[in-house]
Amino acid sequence: VSGTRYLILAEGFSGDPHYGKTMRGVLRYRRDDVVAILDSTRAGEAEDGVPVVGSVDDALPLEPNTALVGVATQGGRFPPAWMEILRTCLARGLHVENGLHVFLSDIPELRELAARNGAEIRDLRRPPQDLSTATGANLEVPSTIVLTVGSDCAIGKMTVSLELDLEARRRGVESVFVPTGQTGIAIAGWGIAVDAVVADFIAGAAEQLVVEGAARGGELLWVEGQGALLHPVYSGVTLGLYHGSVPHLLVLCHQAGQTEIEGAGGGPHRIPPLSELVELHERIALPARPARVAAVALNTRQLGEGEARSALAAAEDETGLPADDPVRFGAERLTEAVLSAEKG
Amino acid sequence: VSGTRYLILAEGFSGDPHYGKTMRGVLRYRRDDVVAILDSTRAGEAEDGVPVVGSVDDALPLEPNTALVGVATQGGRFPPAWMEILRTCLARGLHVENGLHVFLSDIPELRELAARNGAEIRDLRRPPQDLSTATGANLEVPSTIVLTVGSDCAIGKMTVSLELDLEARRRGVESVFVPTGQTGIAIAGWGIAVDAVVADFIAGAAEQLVVEGAARGGELLWVEGQGALLHPVYSGVTLGLYHGSVPHLLVLCHQAGQTEIEGAGGGPHRIPPLSELVELHERIALPARPARVAAVALNTRQLGEGEARSALAAAEDETGLPADDPVRFGAERLTEAVLSAEKG
Repeated sequence: VSGTRYLILAEGFSGDPHYGKTMRGVLRYRRDDVVAILDSTRAGEAEDGVPVVGSVDDALPLEPNTALVGVATQGGRFPPAWMEILRTCLARGLHVENGLHVFLSDIPELRELAARNGAEIRDLRRPPQDLSTATGANLEVPSTIVLTVGSDCAIGKMTVSLELDLEARRRGVESVFVPTGQTGIAIAGWGIAVDAVVADFIAGAAEQLVVEGAARGGELLWVEGQGALLHPVYSGVTLGLYHGSVPHLLVLCHQAGQTEIEGAGGGPHRIPPLSELVELHERIALPARPARVAAVALNTRQLGEGEARSALAAAEDETGLPADDPVRFGAERLTEAVLSAEKG
Repeated sequence: VSGTRYLILAEGFSGDPHYGKTMRGVLRYRRDDVVAILDSTRAGEAEDGVPVVGSVDDALPLEPNTALVGVATQGGRFPPAWMEILRTCLARGLHVENGLHVFLSDIPELRELAARNGAEIRDLRRPPQDLSTATGANLEVPSTIVLTVGSDCAIGKMTVSLELDLEARRRGVESVFVPTGQTGIAIAGWGIAVDAVVADFIAGAAEQLVVEGAARGGELLWVEGQGALLHPVYSGVTLGLYHGSVPHLLVLCHQAGQTEIEGAGGGPHRIPPLSELVELHERIALPARPARVAAVALNTRQLGEGEARSALAAAEDETGLPADDPVRFGAERLTEAVLSAEKG
């Protein structure tokens, strides 16, 4: 990872909060590695202090060495304008990192262009070749393992893991963030998109990740959660990741005020009360690795500050657990809760 | 399916109870479609009244039209002797059905041989191309959906689904068995191996299966369960199948006397008491489709008859649910339990 100088490809979407998850994540957690953002519709502006350029060539004076697909395109596919950008990047010798569902290295033209120009195409969602079913090696990992779980997708599980990892490292803990999705992989420079592996291998992929996290020196591992245990579409990934990563502790993430799972058909899909979610997550742990919820992370971005404080107090009352919004109010309290649960 | 005349390929393993799951399943539930079994180590014998032959050519007078890979080979791969058998089958114009992990249609030599002789290679575990994430169409299926769940893999979930389906049809119910693994697919002639799909699509595959089961006229659908909710390796598949098939009722399967999950590393992996398993399975249902356990199916094959009766009585006492071994004592009682739960 070190030495990476990113040009973030965000054509048409650099200002879009919904499609720009990878761009925003990398800007927040790897700001120093980003030299420019490409979006011809905003050329000349800046985002988070990073210059927005109108073309690949306009970025070259800033010496990027890697182009990162930073936004989701419609259906995860690459329309002609995007293909032209990707061709130019490879022709200029830039590596290309891509976390969308379509694998760029499956496109012969791009693969040849990369080979000819000494560039690499890295499809972040492509599963490694050596996956297998879980073996039990996960239970021998000596680290303390903390998994973020939640009431829905896209409510901030990755962000909570990253914020608590940062805070633990600030406190001198040998702490490692373990990425399980494309944005986490782009941020950390390693990992496996567990939702892209063959179903039989979900737990095996999670096992491989915690083994690697320990090998990277993590005495405390923050495993990025995926989906939700009662999500009608993604619960299989959630439980496989849970059982395969064998966490000791869980941080339960919830968007304050949300009562239904969003974007899933056939609903409404009601979210149970927090106290029920805490119990259900503890009940479904493997008997060989009991897990308990150490804290509740509330995403309060849609609330005013007073309402946010009230929501946190209500969550604490209901669950008897420390609750906080680590993005809004800092990660100290939740990190403290996990570190003291670890000792307890 | 109709018109299929199977030559079951079982070279070296036709007498092996562990490796012969597919052969035994097809012999039990599609006996009339089997004309011969190939196993040169037992040529001249018979299995369940079906002649065992020593070579493909010896089977030809019996006019098979399809060769079914009926046993698991070491590591799911095909050693040279097997390749020779497969080549001969295709050269004689037999279709080949294969449920092992290695896909035969990926082997160019076999693919060419098949094309040249008008034969088809059907890899039963190969996921269909048109899979997607679950859409909610499952919740609109008008059928009553019954899923077998269990305390471990390989304890008879498929068999229970098949036996109860047979009994329901005997009673005149428009009942359909919904196959989710290779043996079930070989028996029913359709289905998806849900453990072989991309993790994101587990629930989507299960949804597609119940939609198809209803389209096949099933007013009562018996979905073949996979894995176990607390299995350290396969739980992701189990929960994705559960939430994607949106069952109204569950039949909990357990091998009498078994206290630990078998064959998973890092254990012991304790099996909780039946009453806890009942509650956990009901708790983890989607709020949009509550499910309850209608009956307990005990596999008592390792017990004497007196012990088996005691185990069934103990299971009934513990859970308050009807319990029986449908293979040993007939499927009437459990089918009755499901049909009356459906009405209740």
